[in-house]
Amino acid sequence: MEKRKVYVDNAATTALSDRAFNAMLPYFSNCYANPSAIHEYGLDARAALERSRRIVAKAIGARNNEIFFTSGGTESDNWALRGAAELRSSKGKHIITTSIEHNAVIKTAEVLEKQGYGVTYLPVDKHGMITPEQLSDAIREDTVLISIMMANNEIGTILPIKELCNVAHKRKVLFHTDAVQAVGHIKINVRELGVDMLSMSAHKFQGPKGIGALYVKIGCPIPPIIYGGGQERGSRSGTENVPGAVGMAAAIEEAVAHMEDNSRKIISMRNKLIQGILKIPGSYLTGDPENRLPGNASFAFDGMDKKPITTALSKEGIFASSASACSAGSIKPSRILLATGATESLAYGTLRITLNEHNSEEDIDYLLEVVPLVISKLRIGE
Amino acid sequence: MEKRKVYVDNAATTALSDRAFNAMLPYFSNCYANPSAIHEYGLDARAALERSRRIVAKAIGARNNEIFFTSGGTESDNWALRGAAELRSSKGKHIITTSIEHNAVIKTAEVLEKQGYGVTYLPVDKHGMITPEQLSDAIREDTVLISIMMANNEIGTILPIKELCNVAHKRKVLFHTDAVQAVGHIKINVRELGVDMLSMSAHKFQGPKGIGALYVKIGCPIPPIIYGGGQERGSRSGTENVPGAVGMAAAIEEAVAHMEDNSRKIISMRNKLIQGILKIPGSYLTGDPENRLPGNASFAFDGMDKKPITTALSKEGIFASSASACSAGSIKPSRILLATGATESLAYGTLRITLNEHNSEEDIDYLLEVVPLVISKLRIGE
Repeated sequence: MEKRKVYVDNAATTALSDRAFNAMLPYFSNCYANPSAIHEYGLDARAALERSRRIVAKAIGARNNEIFFTSGGTESDNWALRGAAELRSSKGKHIITTSIEHNAVIKTAEVLEKQGYGVTYLPVDKHGMITPEQLSDAIREDTVLISIMMANNEIGTILPIKELCNVAHKRKVLFHTDAVQAVGHIKINVRELGVDMLSMSAHKFQGPKGIGALYVKIGCPIPPIIYGGGQERGSRSGTENVPGAVGMAAAIEEAVAHMEDNSRKIISMRNKLIQGILKIPGSYLTGDPENRLPGNASFAFDGMDKKPITTALSKEGIFASSASACSAGSIKPSRILLATGATESLAYGTLRITLNEHNSEEDIDYLLEVVPLVISKLRIGE
Repeated sequence: MEKRKVYVDNAATTALSDRAFNAMLPYFSNCYANPSAIHEYGLDARAALERSRRIVAKAIGARNNEIFFTSGGTESDNWALRGAAELRSSKGKHIITTSIEHNAVIKTAEVLEKQGYGVTYLPVDKHGMITPEQLSDAIREDTVLISIMMANNEIGTILPIKELCNVAHKRKVLFHTDAVQAVGHIKINVRELGVDMLSMSAHKFQGPKGIGALYVKIGCPIPPIIYGGGQERGSRSGTENVPGAVGMAAAIEEAVAHMEDNSRKIISMRNKLIQGILKIPGSYLTGDPENRLPGNASFAFDGMDKKPITTALSKEGIFASSASACSAGSIKPSRILLATGATESLAYGTLRITLNEHNSEEDIDYLLEVVPLVISKLRIGE
């Protein structure tokens, strides 16, 4: 088979879409003024920023003044956790999250632990799932915040956020969801979900890097974590990244408009891929078989003995991931897979393939040709 | 005189340079992978990021591993102050800064005050200047951090950072400088200055918005303020903004390469402008007459009675600022001017014109034609 270049690491990051790029273009060198300036050029930039905010808000069913632009998903997660903890600190110092959160949540929770907060990390089942009952049992009198991701970045499991949030609100606890992997990929309406805070990142849905947002429900006045000129209505200081906001808006609008068609195509390719890969002896699908992100096909393989699947695939032109991108630089067993109860040996042998609508049937055929060969060669030590 | 559009608000933000834009282009939709990915595309992105870091480091005389990319100057300032305060908290809880810092420093210092730190805000003289003696007198046994800006954003005064830093280091106190207005505009070498931390922002020197950096001298291990995947050698988490870093590097390289020629041209235009504007009765140059940023021509006018100079100028196609961009949305007297001892009346009548090399002699002629007329009309209430 002819060698191809197949990028299937879309959960790590995506290419900027043409539409987002074209939308951003005028804001680099023409309409470039500072949106805080009160002259004509400044007002033009302000208008573009606020238009972008409306588009992002609409895409998730929020109001305009519930969207705060940040530098990305990590900042949004940091802000949500630390802001909400500070806001409610007089009511209690207990936080609940899960063992499969992104490091942006886990590491922030650990910092809060050092500051005297108690943190419960809910265990997950073999599919990476949390139940409402489980959450309910973990809530204490002093619980002030719950942070549970909408979809896992490694294994693609989609968690029942609406039901989990209901449990939280019955007990008057604030609820944040890290929806970085979900926004632009599955339907999201913050009013239906009921969440108080929701993190998103533009580059996960073909928007630009360096921009994200935090949805903060009206009536939940979390304090800032970055102070200064008082931009974003006093909540996030720093000169606004207007091209970034415009690109994020264009990308989310495009993603939502084509979500149904794209999902159908992506799920069809993904299912074919999963069926094919699972023919490899000693292979397992990780994450929930049903409730999973459209583009996520994640696997674990027996007997890989810490061998670098990702590097071997890269040599064949396949660009995938072994775990999440953020920890990909280090050879460690996947902590997410360990949390689902997998053995350490299996947690070393992970492969995450994440598709989007720019992948093709030819890509899938190539993957199904090459991945089994690579796994087989690695196993016999070639 | 024919109406023109004259953008002279370059201290608020600048247009992205063609060179920076072209440098960024390949990293939006072609070389777009996550630099933490270990496949071929990821390694390409990593190489671009590290090349950018080397260029930024070289531009200010730093080592590569002393440059940490952030989302901009405000984040850099927040990080420097809170990080250094935390790093040295066991040694003492006193911080020294000045009354003319940007809000990114002032507001962060105020947060630290709430957390139990003592903060001394050094007063400035009529030119916005601080002397080494003044700083020396303010240092206490428990002083752990000094943060003094390199150049003021409103009045353009350049402070004697090398001498101030010497005073700090003699007393073993960490020294941070907010160089957001200085980088790319005046010569900076962190080794000669001796500073421990230096904040910069790309969009102030014709780089992209949404990216900046903090220089942190080796041996000054300040803890992060944004936690997560461990990017930037564990110091600043979040998927790296590769196009942003590449654009920042291209812009700083260009700014440094042409600094002498540009400065000569800009200073010549600025001096002509200052001479012309000062012919207006009741007009004053603000900031230091000698030690000032090349592009800064800032003024105060008697008898303006809170009238909106910036808005009136905008109607004539002149896009300038009344104070700093960040607080431009609100009609308040300039706190910087008040700090220099100006009357409140004068502090309401400020005008900041900030030039760069893309301004022309024709722009200056137009300003000298229009500004006196506008001031005169506002004064007589037309």
